[in-house]
Amino acid sequence: MRNIKLELRFDGRNYHGWQIQPNAVTVQEKVSSAVSEITKEAIKVFGCSRTDSGVHANHFVSSFKTNSKIPTDRIPFALNSLLPADIVCTGAYEMEESFHAIASAKRKTYLYKIENSHIGNPFLAGLVWHYPAKLDIEKMRLAARYFLGTHDFLGFAAAGFSAKTTERTIYELEVTKDEDIINIKVTGDGFLYNMVRIITGTLVWVGIGKIAPSDIPKIIKSKRRENAGITAPPDGLYLWRVYYEEKEEK
Amino acid sequence: MRNIKLELRFDGRNYHGWQIQPNAVTVQEKVSSAVSEITKEAIKVFGCSRTDSGVHANHFVSSFKTNSKIPTDRIPFALNSLLPADIVCTGAYEMEESFHAIASAKRKTYLYKIENSHIGNPFLAGLVWHYPAKLDIEKMRLAARYFLGTHDFLGFAAAGFSAKTTERTIYELEVTKDEDIINIKVTGDGFLYNMVRIITGTLVWVGIGKIAPSDIPKIIKSKRRENAGITAPPDGLYLWRVYYEEKEEK
Repeated sequence: MRNIKLELRFDGRNYHGWQIQPNAVTVQEKVSSAVSEITKEAIKVFGCSRTDSGVHANHFVSSFKTNSKIPTDRIPFALNSLLPADIVCTGAYEMEESFHAIASAKRKTYLYKIENSHIGNPFLAGLVWHYPAKLDIEKMRLAARYFLGTHDFLGFAAAGFSAKTTERTIYELEVTKDEDIINIKVTGDGFLYNMVRIITGTLVWVGIGKIAPSDIPKIIKSKRRENAGITAPPDGLYLWRVYYEEKEEK
Repeated sequence: MRNIKLELRFDGRNYHGWQIQPNAVTVQEKVSSAVSEITKEAIKVFGCSRTDSGVHANHFVSSFKTNSKIPTDRIPFALNSLLPADIVCTGAYEMEESFHAIASAKRKTYLYKIENSHIGNPFLAGLVWHYPAKLDIEKMRLAARYFLGTHDFLGFAAAGFSAKTTERTIYELEVTKDEDIINIKVTGDGFLYNMVRIITGTLVWVGIGKIAPSDIPKIIKSKRRENAGITAPPDGLYLWRVYYEEKEEK
């Protein structure tokens, strides 16, 4: 059987997240049904992450196994003719048998977009967190440095997560500004449930002066959710890139 | 009574156009209901144009008369706290009694956005016309010049329009490209029903070689809809700017 990796990009506004659910439209359902149609097999594709309702992806990886003979380089075109316009397949690759979209992932980058302006841009509704109060970006940058490295992030996880350990390593956490948009880009070996959104909400509290940058280490060490900031809404969150070992590609 | 001009910006994807209709959600309904709430009067706002379902506006002008004492500079903030995030009020001005959003308009600019790429950007679904076939932009520019000036545009109007005459003047028709996006910007004293979308569809037929640029004058002169190109979809159309005599502002 062939093991196919699909690279996807989607606007999550119209979907209840990635994972198939009864009575809700999901990205996994749309992609699985398109893959089933082109392969003539009943296929459920597996994804690299369980994105929440309303969360977007610039680069989402999924995989499926098939006996179909459809040429790999024809798959994106065939899928895009069946998928809705807000879900796009940008690439398909034949992988080693061992490749798995979740288990093989080594690192992930998320991007969180905040629109920091008095009046929101209507064309960005649902694609950013519109936050009208002035944010002090220099303080947010100072605070961001304290998240780098390996920590127990129990205090930055929403209740109900299923991870075995709560220790994670953050390799990069950058705060940049492009006109009205503040971009928070974070790369780690993995993230707990809602962790990026809670880090973002905490940085926003730093930006409005409710938390001092130098308080971050003790907030992390406390391992208590209530010491961190609010959970930012899903609107501004993008799974930006998933990294794998390159050797697994055939 | 005060005569208030409102400047609006909206993403038209979720609306059946501007004009109030039974059993359909429209922009006029949303704005009228927010204005009624802040003025405590039953107000229907009047718009500068009847935009179609799915059409967007970067600058849409509407007006209403009121006895309310709400300060003019507070109106945008008050409305934005009530309007959905995809409709934004960007300004409010008190005008002379004679000002009327349609009758006082002197010129309008529309922008049409075509995404000319193999794979569409899912974040632009509904905001552009995704056209994957290669378009010859130089030919489109040559063709655009023939539309300038005063012509009878009967052949560039959809059936069912209610205009008294079909003569219109086009002051500017520019075709530019910014990465994958082709922008068609057209300014005129007014436009017939679907006129911008039919001009766009005709320029696209020029871009794929189905019509020669030098054929445009005889297509206009024929006054026959079937000689022009297809009607471009509403997705890529933006009312970009409406121009009035400046003296009417109080």
